[in-house]
Amino acid sequence: MFIAEVLAPVVATEKHEFFAGRKLLLVQEILEDGRAGGRTMVALDGVQAGVGDRVLVARNGGAVDDVIGQKDCPANVIIIAHVDAVEHSEPLVSGCNR
Amino acid sequence: MFIAEVLAPVVATEKHEFFAGRKLLLVQEILEDGRAGGRTMVALDGVQAGVGDRVLVARNGGAVDDVIGQKDCPANVIIIAHVDAVEHSEPLVSGCNR
Amino acid sequence: MFIAEVLAPVVATEKHEFFAGRKLLLVQEILEDGRAGGRTMVALDGVQAGVGDRVLVARNGGAVDDVIGQKDCPANVIIIAHVDAVEHSEPLVSGCNR
Amino acid sequence: MFIAEVLAPVVATEKHEFFAGRKLLLVQEILEDGRAGGRTMVALDGVQAGVGDRVLVARNGGAVDDVIGQKDCPANVIIIAHVDAVEHSEPLVSGCNR
Amino acid sequence: MFIAEVLAPVVATEKHEFFAGRKLLLVQEILEDGRAGGRTMVALDGVQAGVGDRVLVARNGGAVDDVIGQKDCPANVIIIAHVDAVEHSEPLVSGCNR
Repeated sequence: MFIAEVLAPVVATEKHEFFAGRKLLLVQEILEDGRAGGRTMVALDGVQAGVGDRVLVARNGGAVDDVIGQKDCPANVIIIAHVDAVEHSEPLVSGCNR
Repeated sequence: MFIAEVLAPVVATEKHEFFAGRKLLLVQEILEDGRAGGRTMVALDGVQAGVGDRVLVARNGGAVDDVIGQKDCPANVIIIAHVDAVEHSEPLVSGCNR
Repeated sequence: MFIAEVLAPVVATEKHEFFAGRKLLLVQEILEDGRAGGRTMVALDGVQAGVGDRVLVARNGGAVDDVIGQKDCPANVIIIAHVDAVEHSEPLVSGCNR
Repeated sequence: MFIAEVLAPVVATEKHEFFAGRKLLLVQEILEDGRAGGRTMVALDGVQAGVGDRVLVARNGGAVDDVIGQKDCPANVIIIAHVDAVEHSEPLVSGCNR
Repeated sequence: MFIAEVLAPVVATEKHEFFAGRKLLLVQEILEDGRAGGRTMVALDGVQAGVGDRVLVARNGGAVDDVIGQKDCPANVIIIAHVDAVEHSEPLVSGCNR
């Protein structure tokens, strides 16, 4: 799992039926300095996230099935939480003051 | 999952029987600047994709099984959607204007 | 599995119900010189780890299920042990003298 | 999945019984310029590959089980096809003219 | 799977009960020039490996279960063979003459 920032919604009209009505978001990993700068990825939204949100992302087909509550989801990356803060002595990530 | 561009079909004559009649495509990850420049990978085609298309790729054996509708597919990368656009304020990826 | 240092707790209020009451920790991989400097990741805590601890981290949905003793945990990274030392002739990692 | 070149057989005498009589090959990923130069890996041979062959490699425990036709194979990388060519306008990989 | 050199035993006293009595080893990937210089990882020992040995490592929760002969092992990296040699024209790795 890693912390990421939501960059943008991904629009896909022709897609596997599982994705009908589901939100796909482009996310970017947060680096140590607290800024979005790492790898980008497309994640299924499991927490009603919006652009600019700091979120927790899991890469795991099983995680997707567990959150969606359905077996055999053809997706393997999902947003599972909003991140409010990382309580570092030197704060790495904060969802509040940005 | 990640966004990629389809580069070329992969021709493989001697292969596991599962792949008979199935299309394999070489894809390359789209970088933040919206151009294909990341890692390359071979993916099973799940959406009738063509060369130059922007697509959503899942890396997950389960995803392949789910899309193909068959258990035990000996492939672990699959194209699951066409990407029309990424609705970024500064568009990262657009399947329309390229 | 890899050895990491616990950097900070991650605070996430809106999250999948599985995570209610569970501790999430930001960890950073230990490099060969024995210092935390590799990739960062968010891990579920399986051993009551604290900030600064050297821990063993597994990346695997199944590992999470096994440690938590529950199927279908929507997490795929977990701390499974405290690392006391790595018995290298030139010690790479030591949880004791730092 | 990715395209790789077979570099060399790997000789392992003391090994898990599953590997008795099975061929293990060191393979190296083919880069965009069509030359072997990426990461190296050890793969189980599923297609009677030889040194110098261009092959399709899957990294997935399930893929191994599917090709071998046996559950619980303690291997997670397998060669699943010979690659004849990649039909790129500028050919990236060709198993024929090298 | 990849070839690695065993660097050192990892001592972990507080750990998940599965690991009681099991040996954990820090291993480092062998690079193309035949020297240990790649990523480091902690692996469960499946072949009674010692420091300095060249070994074959699998990263896969299922592989661990298969070698240990027990379901639900909370580990995802395991040493599955001793590597005697890689029969390259220019030998990449040899467990004999080092």
